[in-house]
Amino acid sequence: MANKWVYNFDEVDQAEKYAGDWEGVRSLLGGKGANLAEMTRIGVPVPPGFTVTTEACNAFLAADNKFPEGMWDQVREAMSATEKKTAKTFGDPKNPLLVSTRSGAKFSMPGMMDTVLNLGMNDETAQGMIDLTGDARFVYDAYRRLVQMFGSVVLDIPDEAFEDPLEEYKEKKGVKLDTELSAEDWKELTEAFKSVIKKYKGFDFPQDPYEQLRYSIEAVFRSWNGKRAVDYRNAAGISHDLGTGVNIVTMVFGNMGDDSGTGVAFTRDPATGKKEIYGDYLINAQGEDVVAGIRNTKPIDEMKQELPEAYKTFEEICDKLERHYKEMQDVEFTIENGKLWMLQTRDGKRTAKAAVTIAVDFVDEGLITKDEAVGRITPNQVNALLHPQFDFDAQKSARDDGKMFASGVNASPGAAVGRVYFDADTAEIKAKEEHEDVIMVRPFTKPDDVHGMLASKGILTSEGGATSHAAVVARQFGIPCIVGAADLKLDLKNLKMEANGIVVKEGDWISVDGTTGEVFLGQLPTKMPSFEEQEELLTLLGWADEIASRDGAREGVDGSPTKGLQVWANADYPADARRSREYGAQGIGLCRTEHMFFEQERLPIVQRMILADDVDERVKALDELLPYQRQDFDGLFEAMTGLPVIIRLIDPPLHEFLPEMEEVIEDVATMKAKGETEGLAEKEALLSNVRSLHESNPMMGLRGVRLSIVMPEIVEMQVRAIFEAAADVKLRGFEPKPEVMIPLTGHVNELKAIQPRLVEIAKEVMDEKGVKFEYKFGTMIEIPRAALTADEIASVAEFFSFGTNDLTQMTFGYSRDDAERNFLLEYVEQGILPVNPFQSIDEDGVGRLMDICTSEGRKARSDLEVGICGEHGGDPDSIELCHKYGLNYVSCSPFRVPVARLAAAQAVLGK
Amino acid sequence: MANKWVYNFDEVDQAEKYAGDWEGVRSLLGGKGANLAEMTRIGVPVPPGFTVTTEACNAFLAADNKFPEGMWDQVREAMSATEKKTAKTFGDPKNPLLVSTRSGAKFSMPGMMDTVLNLGMNDETAQGMIDLTGDARFVYDAYRRLVQMFGSVVLDIPDEAFEDPLEEYKEKKGVKLDTELSAEDWKELTEAFKSVIKKYKGFDFPQDPYEQLRYSIEAVFRSWNGKRAVDYRNAAGISHDLGTGVNIVTMVFGNMGDDSGTGVAFTRDPATGKKEIYGDYLINAQGEDVVAGIRNTKPIDEMKQELPEAYKTFEEICDKLERHYKEMQDVEFTIENGKLWMLQTRDGKRTAKAAVTIAVDFVDEGLITKDEAVGRITPNQVNALLHPQFDFDAQKSARDDGKMFASGVNASPGAAVGRVYFDADTAEIKAKEEHEDVIMVRPFTKPDDVHGMLASKGILTSEGGATSHAAVVARQFGIPCIVGAADLKLDLKNLKMEANGIVVKEGDWISVDGTTGEVFLGQLPTKMPSFEEQEELLTLLGWADEIASRDGAREGVDGSPTKGLQVWANADYPADARRSREYGAQGIGLCRTEHMFFEQERLPIVQRMILADDVDERVKALDELLPYQRQDFDGLFEAMTGLPVIIRLIDPPLHEFLPEMEEVIEDVATMKAKGETEGLAEKEALLSNVRSLHESNPMMGLRGVRLSIVMPEIVEMQVRAIFEAAADVKLRGFEPKPEVMIPLTGHVNELKAIQPRLVEIAKEVMDEKGVKFEYKFGTMIEIPRAALTADEIASVAEFFSFGTNDLTQMTFGYSRDDAERNFLLEYVEQGILPVNPFQSIDEDGVGRLMDICTSEGRKARSDLEVGICGEHGGDPDSIELCHKYGLNYVSCSPFRVPVARLAAAQAVLGK
Repeated sequence: MANKWVYNFDEVDQAEKYAGDWEGVRSLLGGKGANLAEMTRIGVPVPPGFTVTTEACNAFLAADNKFPEGMWDQVREAMSATEKKTAKTFGDPKNPLLVSTRSGAKFSMPGMMDTVLNLGMNDETAQGMIDLTGDARFVYDAYRRLVQMFGSVVLDIPDEAFEDPLEEYKEKKGVKLDTELSAEDWKELTEAFKSVIKKYKGFDFPQDPYEQLRYSIEAVFRSWNGKRAVDYRNAAGISHDLGTGVNIVTMVFGNMGDDSGTGVAFTRDPATGKKEIYGDYLINAQGEDVVAGIRNTKPIDEMKQELPEAYKTFEEICDKLERHYKEMQDVEFTIENGKLWMLQTRDGKRTAKAAVTIAVDFVDEGLITKDEAVGRITPNQVNALLHPQFDFDAQKSARDDGKMFASGVNASPGAAVGRVYFDADTAEIKAKEEHEDVIMVRPFTKPDDVHGMLASKGILTSEGGATSHAAVVARQFGIPCIVGAADLKLDLKNLKMEANGIVVKEGDWISVDGTTGEVFLGQLPTKMPSFEEQEELLTLLGWADEIASRDGAREGVDGSPTKGLQVWANADYPADARRSREYGAQGIGLCRTEHMFFEQERLPIVQRMILADDVDERVKALDELLPYQRQDFDGLFEAMTGLPVIIRLIDPPLHEFLPEMEEVIEDVATMKAKGETEGLAEKEALLSNVRSLHESNPMMGLRGVRLSIVMPEIVEMQVRAIFEAAADVKLRGFEPKPEVMIPLTGHVNELKAIQPRLVEIAKEVMDEKGVKFEYKFGTMIEIPRAALTADEIASVAEFFSFGTNDLTQMTFGYSRDDAERNFLLEYVEQGILPVNPFQSIDEDGVGRLMDICTSEGRKARSDLEVGICGEHGGDPDSIELCHKYGLNYVSCSPFRVPVARLAAAQAVLGK
Repeated sequence: MANKWVYNFDEVDQAEKYAGDWEGVRSLLGGKGANLAEMTRIGVPVPPGFTVTTEACNAFLAADNKFPEGMWDQVREAMSATEKKTAKTFGDPKNPLLVSTRSGAKFSMPGMMDTVLNLGMNDETAQGMIDLTGDARFVYDAYRRLVQMFGSVVLDIPDEAFEDPLEEYKEKKGVKLDTELSAEDWKELTEAFKSVIKKYKGFDFPQDPYEQLRYSIEAVFRSWNGKRAVDYRNAAGISHDLGTGVNIVTMVFGNMGDDSGTGVAFTRDPATGKKEIYGDYLINAQGEDVVAGIRNTKPIDEMKQELPEAYKTFEEICDKLERHYKEMQDVEFTIENGKLWMLQTRDGKRTAKAAVTIAVDFVDEGLITKDEAVGRITPNQVNALLHPQFDFDAQKSARDDGKMFASGVNASPGAAVGRVYFDADTAEIKAKEEHEDVIMVRPFTKPDDVHGMLASKGILTSEGGATSHAAVVARQFGIPCIVGAADLKLDLKNLKMEANGIVVKEGDWISVDGTTGEVFLGQLPTKMPSFEEQEELLTLLGWADEIASRDGAREGVDGSPTKGLQVWANADYPADARRSREYGAQGIGLCRTEHMFFEQERLPIVQRMILADDVDERVKALDELLPYQRQDFDGLFEAMTGLPVIIRLIDPPLHEFLPEMEEVIEDVATMKAKGETEGLAEKEALLSNVRSLHESNPMMGLRGVRLSIVMPEIVEMQVRAIFEAAADVKLRGFEPKPEVMIPLTGHVNELKAIQPRLVEIAKEVMDEKGVKFEYKFGTMIEIPRAALTADEIASVAEFFSFGTNDLTQMTFGYSRDDAERNFLLEYVEQGILPVNPFQSIDEDGVGRLMDICTSEGRKARSDLEVGICGEHGGDPDSIELCHKYGLNYVSCSPFRVPVARLAAAQAVLGK
């Protein structure tokens, strides 16, 4: 038996076969075909037709552009079935059936060939249609459209070959608009277009409708491997072996009079998510007319008055589709002589705000569960709601007004407005020296360009895909970015670019939407949403928290299910802590105490402490620092009352608090060469100190717990400050929960050497102040050896916090700054690394260590608290891994907390 | 039933109880007691007696210096048994039994109290003995010895309290030597010594023999916790809870006439290992006299003539002891009226040379197996045979001549001769500027002293133990070192030191034996043994190779036993390769190609290559380097014909081949300040280049495979040079086995990105030259992530070689140079780390990664060759781990190869 290559829309059995496998249906029929069949199946009026499968496409391409065995016979059978349903016959001059062919892959692909209308027309059927309709102008307009589309879309003849004769003809006739041409004019032009085909191809426009159909199907199949489609798939990361389906749909005409029309609509407002049908329509028009914007469309609610019956049906269908798909839909429809036909439905694109509102409303309407609502919002959408966005209406107007002159791959989300500059140096100078907002535009970027990229508000490239250098860098630094905007023609010599007829010169304003991939001329207004006022978002994140606090499915060490995943924040100052709490953080996972050392009034004391000749002098300086530190911690504990606050003891090497060695060398050399003696001795003494603290690889040097063991006075002061502050806060009626974190442990003996003394200080302070409160001492896990000996370390440490930045550095042997500049971004671009491991946890290496560490640590201490405070704590993919490994919380920067709350819930849901 | 605290020497049943547990017997009875019992058990004549156990000692100390219940009764019973055996009675004036007490812990401890002789003498028994022997002088000499020893050893009265009256007496009498004193004199002195005791202690010298015995046993027990003993145990790393036994032995007298005598001997020559009894004896003398050197001893073979019967018995006993213990013995004996008594036997200390010779001879004599012979030589002994040693006879003479003025813990082996300096700065100046051989002497050392230590030939400290800073540093750098020489009194102000009456001033010559812990005045001659001429060593190492190549006991991945462990060498030049082969290396595990870049004529080309503006210019420079590299490899392949040679492609970051950035900064600043313009532009250009290559953590930067991916031209040249050389060598009739090693892999995709192109070049070259030979491509494992993803990496790499230096750096997060200077040595000293992980593989962290890596790598590629080429490859403890993990070979520096061969065999033996 031959394979089945063709499915009628109403082959319910087949559709049901796939009912449990919607992905499979979409893979087989393509998105458009699957939805046409699905609408048919559930009783929505769809013009009869059928789909040639993606498998047929792949078989065709594999067989060197030959239809697979049996396919053409099946197409002819399906045409017969369609003829029966429509009571028309393909190629019958008396009552001709006309069809369109529409390509449709699994994923929407703007880079592919689209649609051919009116197949089935020829000289004879045209005459028959005139007899039927009495409207020769309509018929010849339709006929010439077929010839023109067939020529350009199917036969690949350049558009100009048809547009030029049309323009000449209009000029000759002295008319401006197509609408001014008569039936005779169109008839003449139809003949002219036939000549074009003859001239370019050497054969006549095929009069045989089946030959037209065969050509069209072949052309759609071939277009899968067309350059534009391949480029698009490369850029968007779509697999090349999916193939496209071809949909053959009975033509219906919205231009049959005032009881006819056509329109496109969303079932809800895609900008706000409000529950009302949103779209445009035209009476007595064809679908193309709405899209092309030749006539001014009307808002869809006017249809209520103009075509009340059809509108009512339409409302019912919209509701039915939403209930069926459990998603807001983007639909196309045509009304032919009062009868409504649905030509397409698909999940509607929407703003982040609309996505959240719709999800929340759907829950209220009982369409989906809270879990589903939380599951269908992307972390990026939450992120977008915390960052500037373009004003929706302004963006829509800009689109409608043709100001959107290019689009590409949405590589890094966010809205950016700035002046165009075409090289990194100029971009940087304009940004830094002239304080301009800059959009840097390049064919592609290289490591040399990074300084310009960092100075820019947005980045736009004409080449490259989602993992190109520009994309990787931009995402990393949160700069809105579009790559692979292939329409853009850059003229770097003359400092201008052009796309779709719009020319942009150096210094001109453009607006870049990294979320949608759209590029606009001019300055689009942006707005920064307030977190507290976004009610639906707060509702959704509340649900996320409920989900994230559920017992997980993964078994804990003792056989019990792990608790859910909390979100904490990294915050160094009370203001950060308050913001974190507003954003929903359930604790502070990392307070970096050394940041406090860099403040202007403190740095001289810190330097005095470092350069002290003996311990006494050092302790004197530390005594001066203590009140500052105590004050810092006081505010933090008050802001986070009732919640845990992890404070990390001093981590960086001491030389970071002193001037750069290179600078001092230069100063001393200059003074000596000039014979300057004043201050030279001091400078030389400083140099000697800086030199003695200099390390060839400071990342792996005297820092963290190592520094505390060699020079315990600093952390002794810090622990005293922490507990004095906590005691004061407690005495004021708050509930401090300090957790002291010792960084960079590699061997349990390091903790054994330092922790007991610190615990003693904690107890001393509580005794002195006469208060008691809970506290913990724990360690950061950032050294591979610590992860590998977690059982030993957990015998002393009461909590672990993964410092995944350093852990990634050590596990890969990458010095982060050096590596990204020198080879890491190139690695990501070349695909040597699937992703920058400093952005998303490397599962096989770093992740494996985290897994070993967590499970073995918990074996030694079953109630071990384990979290993450590296930058990965805000990355959704990493959060998923953290849940897999059984962590108690992830800690990230305050602004990422809402994103992490969603990601944590999704991790618990196993999404 | 009370515990058993006392064992008679002839309690065969008890001894047999322990027959299978010699360690247990030694723990219970102490080394001396165990051997006395053992000799008794096998029929060697030992004077009757018994041992009070170490358990009794511990019980005594735990009970605040009270004998445990039943012990004293058991002592009295054992005395009765001894009385029966000797037919004498303790305290019986008619026929008195005299005994000695001798301490004896499990391990020999010079820091403990030793021996009290002649217990059982009192005023009455002295008279009885005179009646019996008719020799009053002998009897009063014996009596005063008891009183004197009892006073100083048991009652802790200063030696001078007895020596001063003796000297005064001799002066009064006008005699010089003790031998000139008469019976009456000794009798008077005995009374004088009794008065000393009365004066110091307030009680009389006890006349009751059992009181004497009780005092003596208590004193031995107490001495376990004496300061000197505690210090010694701390320094030597002996546990404090072992306790000491006390041996009570019937006195026998070698000074009973010309058919009496005494001696000490080794069963073989301890210097050379030659099979002949080696020792000294005296006719008509007591043991002390031999040791004290008051009379000139005779070489033991003269005894053959003087006491032929006794000698024959002695020879038989020596033979019996050797056959019993299967070890060369160090014995003490006394002949009383023709009857030979053995007073002690123990394994004899010997030189490294003797150890090897004896082991080999024992195999030839059928006493031990080859496995046992290989098992009983320490890696340090093999090492000693490859390094300068003191001439044995000269060292012995120096000892005999009293030139050995101090001893301490043998912290780092080897012989060193130099002038004494007491601080690091002076030591360094004298060594570097005046080219003196320096021995640095300090109370202890600190990190600040390292520069002086490194400049010294030897190091001597008066404080600290085997893990003190000085010991750790010295071992690491192979500098002979003695620590904790407690007798030394340092006078740093006056730049001198004193010990045992010898004063050494700054600049004086001393000789330091780090192998034995002895310090000598003056310059002892050293000699450097030749490897090839040490026949026995060659024999032993041959056996080691046989053992090491056996199938191991550990199961391989596929269930088969692992193959044995080979020893390869790290060699960069043909001369090193030849030496490695002589030393028994079975391959080259690491040839560092970049060393070749540093040679004078090549460095300018290398710099031109680095600073090239474009690829063409770089390739031009590389083309110039190619013939040099080919030539290097040519010699290497020829020298190693038939054996594998692993060549590592370029590893270090490129900036290492350029001047230091700090220097160039200084130069530029100076030139600018002085207004010099000539050459400034070039200098600035150089600075710009150096700056662009500068990395904040070069260890984790652009090096190894990363560099090769960014700049593949260098390794392409290197691989071409390797294969051209191999082909040339093959054409000359040799058998090259190149293995190309790609360093610093962290992700399998790095190999996938570079290896195919290199394999292609290899094939190209073989095609060009028209030859074929085997080759491999593999990688170094030095990044934790590589170890954690070994299965993936082994899918591409054909061999792994652990670079444990870097792997240790990354796993611990230690930058080696910085760390050792800043905290690592302090960590080892404080016991935070049990050992410097750069010396011995850290089993829990680095070792675990190696284990994971090897087993998972072999799962992916069952014939994966795995070795180690880090410095750990020459460390015996690390070699043991390497075998445990199933490695195929260890590779170390050529000079360590013999040591590693032994260690590899011992690892396979499971020692």
